[in-house]
Amino acid sequence: MKYVYLFSEGDASMRELLGGKGANLAEMTKIGLPVPQGFTISTEACTKYYEDGKQINDSIMAEIMENIVKMEEITGKKFGDLENPLLVSVRSGARASMPGMMDTILNLGLNEEVVKVMAEKSGNARWAYDCYRRFIQMYSDVVMEVGKKYFEQLIDKMKEEKGVKLDVELTADDLKTLAEQFKAEYKAKIGKDFPSDPKEQLIGAVKAVFRSWDNPRANVYRRDNDIPYSWGTAVNVQAMAFGNMGDDCGTGVAFTRDPATGEKKLMGEFLTNAQGEDVVAGVRTPMPIAQMAEKFPEAFAQFENVCKILEDHYRDMQDMEFTVEHGKLYMLQTRNGKRTAAAALKIACDLVDEGMIDEKQAVLMIDPRNLDTLLHPQFDAKALKDAKPAARALGASPGAACGKIVFTAEDAKVWKARKEKVILVRLETSPEDIEGMKASQGILTARGGMTSHAAVVARGMGTCCVSGCSAITNFNEEAKTFELAGKTYKEGDVISIDGSTGNIYDGAIPTVDATISGDFGRIMAWADKYRALGVRTNADTPKDAAKARELGAEGIGLCRTEHMFFEGNRIDAFREMICSDTVEEREAALNKILPMQQGDFEKLYEALEGNPVTIRFLDPPLHEFVPTSEYDIEQLAKAQGKTTAQIKAIIASLHEANPMMGHRGCRLTVTYPEIAKMQTRAVIRAAINVQNRHPEWKVVPEIMIPLVGEAKELKFVKGIVVATADEEIALAKSDLKYEVGTMIEIPRACITADEIAKEAEFFCFGTNDLTQMTYGFSRDDAGKFLTAYYDTKIFENDPFAKIDQNGVGKLMDIAVKLGRGVRENMHCGICGEHGGDPSSIEFCHKIGLSYVSCSPFRVPIARLAAAQAQLKNPRN
Amino acid sequence: MKYVYLFSEGDASMRELLGGKGANLAEMTKIGLPVPQGFTISTEACTKYYEDGKQINDSIMAEIMENIVKMEEITGKKFGDLENPLLVSVRSGARASMPGMMDTILNLGLNEEVVKVMAEKSGNARWAYDCYRRFIQMYSDVVMEVGKKYFEQLIDKMKEEKGVKLDVELTADDLKTLAEQFKAEYKAKIGKDFPSDPKEQLIGAVKAVFRSWDNPRANVYRRDNDIPYSWGTAVNVQAMAFGNMGDDCGTGVAFTRDPATGEKKLMGEFLTNAQGEDVVAGVRTPMPIAQMAEKFPEAFAQFENVCKILEDHYRDMQDMEFTVEHGKLYMLQTRNGKRTAAAALKIACDLVDEGMIDEKQAVLMIDPRNLDTLLHPQFDAKALKDAKPAARALGASPGAACGKIVFTAEDAKVWKARKEKVILVRLETSPEDIEGMKASQGILTARGGMTSHAAVVARGMGTCCVSGCSAITNFNEEAKTFELAGKTYKEGDVISIDGSTGNIYDGAIPTVDATISGDFGRIMAWADKYRALGVRTNADTPKDAAKARELGAEGIGLCRTEHMFFEGNRIDAFREMICSDTVEEREAALNKILPMQQGDFEKLYEALEGNPVTIRFLDPPLHEFVPTSEYDIEQLAKAQGKTTAQIKAIIASLHEANPMMGHRGCRLTVTYPEIAKMQTRAVIRAAINVQNRHPEWKVVPEIMIPLVGEAKELKFVKGIVVATADEEIALAKSDLKYEVGTMIEIPRACITADEIAKEAEFFCFGTNDLTQMTYGFSRDDAGKFLTAYYDTKIFENDPFAKIDQNGVGKLMDIAVKLGRGVRENMHCGICGEHGGDPSSIEFCHKIGLSYVSCSPFRVPIARLAAAQAQLKNPRN
Repeated sequence: MKYVYLFSEGDASMRELLGGKGANLAEMTKIGLPVPQGFTISTEACTKYYEDGKQINDSIMAEIMENIVKMEEITGKKFGDLENPLLVSVRSGARASMPGMMDTILNLGLNEEVVKVMAEKSGNARWAYDCYRRFIQMYSDVVMEVGKKYFEQLIDKMKEEKGVKLDVELTADDLKTLAEQFKAEYKAKIGKDFPSDPKEQLIGAVKAVFRSWDNPRANVYRRDNDIPYSWGTAVNVQAMAFGNMGDDCGTGVAFTRDPATGEKKLMGEFLTNAQGEDVVAGVRTPMPIAQMAEKFPEAFAQFENVCKILEDHYRDMQDMEFTVEHGKLYMLQTRNGKRTAAAALKIACDLVDEGMIDEKQAVLMIDPRNLDTLLHPQFDAKALKDAKPAARALGASPGAACGKIVFTAEDAKVWKARKEKVILVRLETSPEDIEGMKASQGILTARGGMTSHAAVVARGMGTCCVSGCSAITNFNEEAKTFELAGKTYKEGDVISIDGSTGNIYDGAIPTVDATISGDFGRIMAWADKYRALGVRTNADTPKDAAKARELGAEGIGLCRTEHMFFEGNRIDAFREMICSDTVEEREAALNKILPMQQGDFEKLYEALEGNPVTIRFLDPPLHEFVPTSEYDIEQLAKAQGKTTAQIKAIIASLHEANPMMGHRGCRLTVTYPEIAKMQTRAVIRAAINVQNRHPEWKVVPEIMIPLVGEAKELKFVKGIVVATADEEIALAKSDLKYEVGTMIEIPRACITADEIAKEAEFFCFGTNDLTQMTYGFSRDDAGKFLTAYYDTKIFENDPFAKIDQNGVGKLMDIAVKLGRGVRENMHCGICGEHGGDPSSIEFCHKIGLSYVSCSPFRVPIARLAAAQAQLKNPRN
Repeated sequence: MKYVYLFSEGDASMRELLGGKGANLAEMTKIGLPVPQGFTISTEACTKYYEDGKQINDSIMAEIMENIVKMEEITGKKFGDLENPLLVSVRSGARASMPGMMDTILNLGLNEEVVKVMAEKSGNARWAYDCYRRFIQMYSDVVMEVGKKYFEQLIDKMKEEKGVKLDVELTADDLKTLAEQFKAEYKAKIGKDFPSDPKEQLIGAVKAVFRSWDNPRANVYRRDNDIPYSWGTAVNVQAMAFGNMGDDCGTGVAFTRDPATGEKKLMGEFLTNAQGEDVVAGVRTPMPIAQMAEKFPEAFAQFENVCKILEDHYRDMQDMEFTVEHGKLYMLQTRNGKRTAAAALKIACDLVDEGMIDEKQAVLMIDPRNLDTLLHPQFDAKALKDAKPAARALGASPGAACGKIVFTAEDAKVWKARKEKVILVRLETSPEDIEGMKASQGILTARGGMTSHAAVVARGMGTCCVSGCSAITNFNEEAKTFELAGKTYKEGDVISIDGSTGNIYDGAIPTVDATISGDFGRIMAWADKYRALGVRTNADTPKDAAKARELGAEGIGLCRTEHMFFEGNRIDAFREMICSDTVEEREAALNKILPMQQGDFEKLYEALEGNPVTIRFLDPPLHEFVPTSEYDIEQLAKAQGKTTAQIKAIIASLHEANPMMGHRGCRLTVTYPEIAKMQTRAVIRAAINVQNRHPEWKVVPEIMIPLVGEAKELKFVKGIVVATADEEIALAKSDLKYEVGTMIEIPRACITADEIAKEAEFFCFGTNDLTQMTYGFSRDDAGKFLTAYYDTKIFENDPFAKIDQNGVGKLMDIAVKLGRGVRENMHCGICGEHGGDPSSIEFCHKIGLSYVSCSPFRVPIARLAAAQAQLKNPRN
C-alpha cells in the first residue's frame, strides 16, 4: 500500500487518491507548468489515520520521511539546513473541492536558526521575519488551536506602537520582535516551547489537516454538498514560492472566465509583496488582475499563457492560485472554478460553441442543484455579503424572501390584501394554512423536516421556505411573538429568509428576481435528448401543473387530492361527511363535493393536454380535516343538526396516538368505500368530458391507491374503483381507458410486491412514507435527534432529502424486481420528495424506474440529473 | 380435476380434500363399519364455487349428478322414486372441525308424492310426515334463510291446539298439517312453491353449505382457531338412517373418554325415536349412554365394539354420532373429540401408558393454546353456561376474573388494601399504572390491541386482561362512570371478564382456581426432550422471573428496564434527569437510580441461577415518564429549583406527533449517552457481584440495544457500552464476560442485517415494533380499522398476535440469513409477543431462530409448540 506520491508520480485521473488539489498539481507538473515541487499524502492515509484512532501509523510515517528526502533532492533544499533551507506549505485537498473548509500552513520549516540564516543570505531580513511570524501564527492557530485573535492583538499593538496602519509598514525588527512575542504567547498558552524541528512541525501540520476533515464547518459543508465523510482529505506538501520577498513579488488568484456571468475574460486579483492568505484576509486591497499586466508584464504574459494551456487542457473554466517570486511565475493550484448557475450554463454553451466539448460533456458539467437559483428570487449578493444570519435551519424550499412577520394564514391573506409583503411564521403548517401560504413571500416554521407539510407544499408552489428552526423559542401564536437569537420578534417585524441555505436574517435584505437565459433552454434540450428517465411533476392545481409543463414536465406523477377538499366551502361538505352517522348521510355529503372535484380534474387534464395524470386518492387521516375553533365546531353542529358535544365527541374519536401509522390511505377506503367511489366518479367523468372535448388527445387517467401493504387490500379497493369506473364509462357510452396502480410506501408492500403487482397496473414509490416506515422515524419528530445523528456521523445526510440507498433503496430495488417479475414492463415511478434530488434521481435511474415526479420548480433539475445519470450509466 | 368422491373412494389421509367428516366417513367405510353410503363434494369444489362468483360450475354439477346415480346404485334407492325413494342428509365438513359453525339438512329428497308413498309403504305415516316437516323447516331455514322461528311458532300453535307438550305427542295427521302449513309459510316468505325436485333440493343444499363457510360465526371461529378462509368446506351427501321410525329407533352422540377429565369410560347421550338435531336442540331430555345398554342391548353392544375399533384405529379419543334404525346401528360421524386441557393431558399420558401411542405422538396431540386454561383461574363452567356476555373485545391475557370496578391505579391499590377484589377499567394503561394493575384481579381497557401496554404487562403478570373494548363509551375517569351495552357502570359495580375469550359479563361469575396435574409435567418433559428451540421468558421482576423458571424458562430473553424506573422514588430521580439542563445534572440524577437498578439486576441474576439474562436498555420516549398532574409538576419544579412554567415547557418540548416513531430506543442513547452508561454500570456491577457470590454459576449478561436501524448507530452505542463495561470490569479486577446485541425491530435493520451483525453479538426480533413498522400500523390505532379488515377478509388474523409470515416473516428470514452470513452461529431470538403464539413459534423454528422468549405463563405453551415444530419439521 502506497500512501505518499511525489507530484511527478501522479496525474489528474488520480483525484480520488490525491484529492483535487494534489491531482491537479501532479497534472500541471506533468504538462510542464512551473509548479514548486513536493508530494501528496493520499486520502487513504487520512482514512487510515481515523481508523487507527487519529494516529499516523509507522509505515505512513516512514513513507512521509522518505518523500521528504526525495523532495529535498528535487528542490536542492533541505529541512533545517542553514545553507539552503527547505520551506514548505501544507494544505488540505479533498476529492471534491471544499473552498475554505479546511486549514493551510505556510512557511513550515522555519526556526530560530533558519530564519536568521535566511535573513542574512537573502539580504532581506524583513521577508525572513515576515515568513517566520506568519508561520508561528498559522501553526499555533491550525495545529495547536491557539486562537488567531491573540496574535492579531499583538500585531495591532505593535502597529499602534509604531504608528503605522499596514502590516507592510512594519520593519524587519518589528517583525522579529513580533515573532518573539508570538512564541512567548504560544508557550503561555500551550506550556511548551514552539517546536523547532521542521519534521516535527510537518507531522503536526499533517495531523492538523487530517483533523480538519472532521471540523464542524467541514461537516456542515459536506452535508450540504453530498460529500461522504469516508472520502477523507489528502495533504499536499509543497516547496514554498515567496510572494513576500519584495516589490517584484506577489501572489494572486484568477478565473479564466467570469464566475458570476460566464463571460470569457480573465478575472482575478493580485497583491504585491504578499503571501496567499493576505488576498483572502483583505489586509490590503489587491489590484485587479488586468493591472498586473502593467506591473509584471513578463510574469503576466507567462500567466496568460498558462491560463490558455490549462483551459484547453481541462476544457473548463479554471480557478487558479499563483505566486510571483522575483518576477517568476509559480502555479500553486488549479481547479474547475465554482460559478453561479447562470455562468455555468453560459460557459457550457460557449465551450460547445468553441468546439472544446460536446453536448454530452456540457450536460455533465452543470450541477443540477444550482439550477434552483435560476428559478427563484435570490438575495442581492452585495447586500448579503455583510449580513450575518440570526439562525440557520433547513433550506426546505429554495429562493429568498423578505417581509413582515405574520403568525396565521388568515393574517397572511389580510396583509397581502393590503399590499404588504409577509413571511408566514408558524410552529408547523397544516392543510388549512394553504391559502395563507400562497399569500406569503416565504414561510418559516419552528418544527418539521424536509418533507414536512410546509416544505412539501412550499416547494410545490415555488415559495421560499425555511423549516425546522429549533432556535425559535417561546412561540406564542396568541400574543404573536417568538424569540430567536436573543431577540423577541412580533407581528410586523421584518425578517429575511433564504430557502436554499436555510439562513434566517433579522431585518430586510433586498432580493433580485429569477432570470432564465437562452442557455438554459439549450442545456435542457440536450438533457432531454440524452435522458432515459421520464420526468413528471407533483401538482394539485392547474396553475402548478401549467408551471410544471412550462418547465418541461411530461405528466403529473402525483396529484394529491386532499388539498382539493380544503378549498372554499368544500371543507364544510367534507366535514359533514366525516360527522355522518350513516352511509347515506356520507354519500349525500360526498355528492356535494363530486362536481367540484370533477371540475378540478377537468382543469388538470386540460392543463396536461393528453399527457398522463396520476391521481392519488384521499390519503391523510380524517382528523386533519375537522374544525378546531369553537366557532367552526358550532357551525358544523348546526349544519348537521347535532350538538357541539356530539361533534366534539366525533372529533375526539378521530384522535390517534400515531396518526402517521393510523387510519389513513387505502385504510379509509376499506372503512368508507363511498369516498373512493366519489373520487372514481370525479376522475372518470372528468376524463370522459375532456376526452370528448379534445378527441386529438389520449386521456388515460391513472388512479393511484395510497398506503397499500397487502395485495388483498389493493384487490378490495381496486374492486370498488373498477366497478364504479366501469359503470360510469358504460353510462357515458365511452371507451375511456384508465389504470389502477398503487403507491409503494409501506415496507411490506416492497417485500410482497410480486403479490401486489398481480393487482397493480403501475407502482409509484412514495419515498417520504417509505423512509419513515423503513427507519421507524416520524418526519415530524426526527428533528429532535437528527442533529445528534449528524454530530456522531451516524448520518451524513437527511434520509428525507436523499434516498437511503442501503435501506430504503434496497427495498425499492426488491419491489421493482418482484413487481416486474409478475407484470413485465409495468411502469414504476417515484413521487416522494426524493424525485427532485439529483443523487436520488441517479439511483432511480439505476434501479430501472420509468420516471421521477417532483415539484414543478424541480423539474429542470430532474431533467438534467436524469440526463447525467444516463450519460454515466447508460441503460436501454 | 376430480371434485366428488364416493365414501368408498376415500380414506382418513384425504382430510384436506374431503374435510374431516368426509375423510372419516370414508375411513369407517374402508374398515367395514356400518356407514350409510354416499359421497363427498371436496373442499376444492368450495374454493372453486367462490372463485366462480358463488356458482357451482357445469363440470362440478355434472360430477355431482354422476355420483347421485352411483349412490342410487349402491343404496338401491332412487331420488324421487315412489317404490324405494332415496333420502339423504347434507352436511358440511371442513378440514378442521368447526362444531356447530355450519349448517346441516336432513331428509332431503322428500316431496308430496314421496312422503305419501313412504307413509303407506312403511305403515308409519307419523315417521314419514315427521321427516317431511323437519325437512321443510331445515331447508327453509338453511337454504332459503327463512327464520326458524316462523316454523317453531306454527309447531307451538299446533301443540297448543292439540293440548300436548312434546313433539312426539303430535300425530301423523298433525305433522301432515304442519308440513302443509310450513310449505304455505315458505311460499308466503319466498314467493315460490317449495321445491319438489330432489335434485334441485340437493343443489340448493350444497350451495347453502358452501355459503355457510362465509357466515359471520364461521368467520369468527376461524379467526379464533387459526383456520384459513382459503381452506373451504366439503359437503357430505349421505343416505339417511332413521332414528325417528319408532321406539326401536333413536339417535345418539358419545365420546370414548370423558372430554372434561379424560377418564377412560364411554360418555354420551341417546334419544329414542328422534333425529340428530333433537339431541342438540334439547326438545326432550336424552338418556345417558349407559341406559342405552338396557334399552338397546344389541345395538349398544355393536356400538361398544365400534368404539373400541375406532379408538384403536385412530389412537385417540373419539367423538361419534350414530343412529339406531329398528335396532340396527349406523355410524354417521367420528372424529377426534374436543376436550379440556386437563383431559387432553390425561388422555395423551394414558394412551402412552396403554401402549397406543409414543411420547412424540403424545406431544403432538395437545393443542398448546389450551394449556392457558390450566395456568389461570377460569369461570366455573356451570355458572358460565347461562351467562350472556355484555360485550366482547380482545382476549389479551388469559384467565377469568370477577370484581368491583375501579377507574384508577391508585384506587386499585386502595381498594385492594381494604381486601376488595377489583377490576381496573381504563381507557388504556401506561407504565404509571403498573402497581395498580398488580393490585387488580383483572384489567379491562377501552383501547389498545394485543400488544398494547395493558396486554403485554398483564400477560407478564399472569393477570387476566380484556383490551380494546370499543363498546365502552363515554368513559369518564373523573365521574368514574362508563357505558357498556346500554348500561351505565360506576365505581364499585361488579363485572366479570374472561381474558381468554374476551367476553365481558355484567355481575359476578364465580371462578375456579388453576390446577396443574402430574400429566402436565410428563408432557412438558417429553416436549423438552424433542424441541430444538430454546424457550426464554420476558420478565422484568425477580418474581416474574421465578414464576417463569418454575414454568420451565431457560433464561430471560427480554428484561424491559423501563418498568424499573417507575418503582418507588426512582421516578422522581428519573424525572429530574429528564428535566436537567446539563450533562452533569443528568448524571447526578442517574447516579441516584444506579444502585437501585443494580440491586434489581442482582435479584434477577439470582433468580436465574446462571442462566442467560438479556437486558434491554431504555426504550420508550421520555415523555412517558413525565408527571401529568399539577401536584407532581409542582413537586418536580421544587426539587429542581425550577418554575412550574419551566417544567411544563420541558414537558411540552417532549411532545411528539408520532411517538412510536420518535425519540426513543437507541436514539435516546445517541442524544443522552449518560443513560446507557448508567445502565451499563448497573448491569455489569450486578453481574460481578452475583458472579462473586456464586462462583458455581456462569453469569454472562446480554445487553440488548433497542430500535437499531443502522449499523453505525449500533456501533456508536456499543462503543459507549463497551467502554463503560470494560472500565467497570477492570476496576473490579473481574474477568466477567458480556455480550452486546440488538433488537431487530425496524425494517431497515432486517434489510441491512449483514452490516449490523458486524457489531451485534446477537439478534433478538422485536416483532411488535417490527410488525408496526412493516405494515405502517400503529398498534394503538389499528383497532379502528382492523374490524373492517376482518370483515372484508383482507386480514384473517391479527398480525400483532400471529406473525405475518409473508411480510414481517420474510424480513425476519432475510435478517437471520444476512446476520449469520457475517457472524456464523450468532444466536437469534424473538421477544415480541409472537414468541408465545404456537403458529409463530413454528415459523421461528423454521427460519432457524435459537430461542423464543415469551411472558412467563406462556412458557409451557412455547415449550410444547417448539417440540411440535421440531417433530413436524426436524432441524439440527
